[in-house]
Amino acid sequence: MSEQTQLIPGNSLITKTAEEGRALAIKMARLIIKVTQPDAEAREKMRPTYANDAAMLIAIGQTVATEFATIAKANNYWK
Amino acid sequence: MSEQTQLIPGNSLITKTAEEGRALAIKMARLIIKVTQPDAEAREKMRPTYANDAAMLIAIGQTVATEFATIAKANNYWK
Amino acid sequence: MSEQTQLIPGNSLITKTAEEGRALAIKMARLIIKVTQPDAEAREKMRPTYANDAAMLIAIGQTVATEFATIAKANNYWK
Amino acid sequence: MSEQTQLIPGNSLITKTAEEGRALAIKMARLIIKVTQPDAEAREKMRPTYANDAAMLIAIGQTVATEFATIAKANNYWK
Amino acid sequence: MSEQTQLIPGNSLITKTAEEGRALAIKMARLIIKVTQPDAEAREKMRPTYANDAAMLIAIGQTVATEFATIAKANNYWK
Amino acid sequence: MSEQTQLIPGNSLITKTAEEGRALAIKMARLIIKVTQPDAEAREKMRPTYANDAAMLIAIGQTVATEFATIAKANNYWK
Repeated sequence: MSEQTQLIPGNSLITKTAEEGRALAIKMARLIIKVTQPDAEAREKMRPTYANDAAMLIAIGQTVATEFATIAKANNYWK
Repeated sequence: MSEQTQLIPGNSLITKTAEEGRALAIKMARLIIKVTQPDAEAREKMRPTYANDAAMLIAIGQTVATEFATIAKANNYWK
Repeated sequence: MSEQTQLIPGNSLITKTAEEGRALAIKMARLIIKVTQPDAEAREKMRPTYANDAAMLIAIGQTVATEFATIAKANNYWK
Repeated sequence: MSEQTQLIPGNSLITKTAEEGRALAIKMARLIIKVTQPDAEAREKMRPTYANDAAMLIAIGQTVATEFATIAKANNYWK
Repeated sequence: MSEQTQLIPGNSLITKTAEEGRALAIKMARLIIKVTQPDAEAREKMRPTYANDAAMLIAIGQTVATEFATIAKANNYWK
Repeated sequence: MSEQTQLIPGNSLITKTAEEGRALAIKMARLIIKVTQPDAEAREKMRPTYANDAAMLIAIGQTVATEFATIAKANNYWK
């Protein structure tokens, strides 16, 4: 059961609002990084690197945008 | 409430015009960077870096294009 | 009013031909760079850099391809 | 027969849940790397490199997001 | 008239076959580079660079894949 | 005739199974590299480079994922 919610919180792409869909996109992107680098300390060490590197911040934005495209479609754009 | 509009202004992908949709795409891309690097001063320090780096400007364009694809579809391309 | 056409010329994704849609994709990609780096001189300084860098030219192609995907769909592929 | 499931486990994009679809996206992304670099030892040697490199972790996230978009659509977003 | 076919040969995304659609994707990607760097000699100078750089060849593949996605859809996948 | 199958084997995106679709995505991605660098020896020289470079392997995965998205849709996800 716990494994069923390791990658997608709530095991669903459906959210009540666009804002919540956006937050889900961020969370899903982070969870991929978590399963690829499961060591919390190692991840924490990388934080100052990417948080102060403009190129990486832009790349994070690109990944979130791609995740969000899927979530937005799943929710019919919250129309 | 304020948290509900932290990532998507107005908590909606719907805009009146294509131009406004494009502006929303830029804003949404920037807000991802803001939540990843919440320190305003740190973000400000990076500005001259990316604003004068052709590769980063192109990458920003790529991210905005991806966000805009979602927004444009949500608005049925303002047809 | 002038602000309404700062990001998308004509405030519309609809074009008469595929060729015009392609030109719009290029223009829209450039306008994102323009709003991110509003200083014309700074942009001009970067031109020889990206115009002679194969990797950047490819990246520009990627961004235009993404913008064009949206425009082509908006125009039902000019069929 | 074994070759038929070398790239997509179960030879199908359909999964019971969103979580399983996400796991499939990760697996499919990894299998492309496996067929490109079939030497297990060589792949193992690269692990500490990408698992401790923020830029690569973000790029992995981008690839998984793209695979997931296809899988999610195939499953009609598990609605 | 000549300007109408500067970016998309034949001013149309419709092709008879998938193979021709693929060729069009390559051509459209190249024409973006051509309008960004109009100097033929400068482009020719870059050829040995990208043709012998694995990372750039992969990036070219990414751009062509994105262009092709649009063309394939325009042609209803030649079904 | 030979030219008709230079870029897409069989000149068709339709495959019997998802696995075959995935294999086609890999092949199509490779054929773009082949037409960009037609010298077989030059391509062979690059192989150890990208096969032992985590960043390039990830980038290959991204390109294949994009090609596969198109092929999967063409086949209505083999449902």
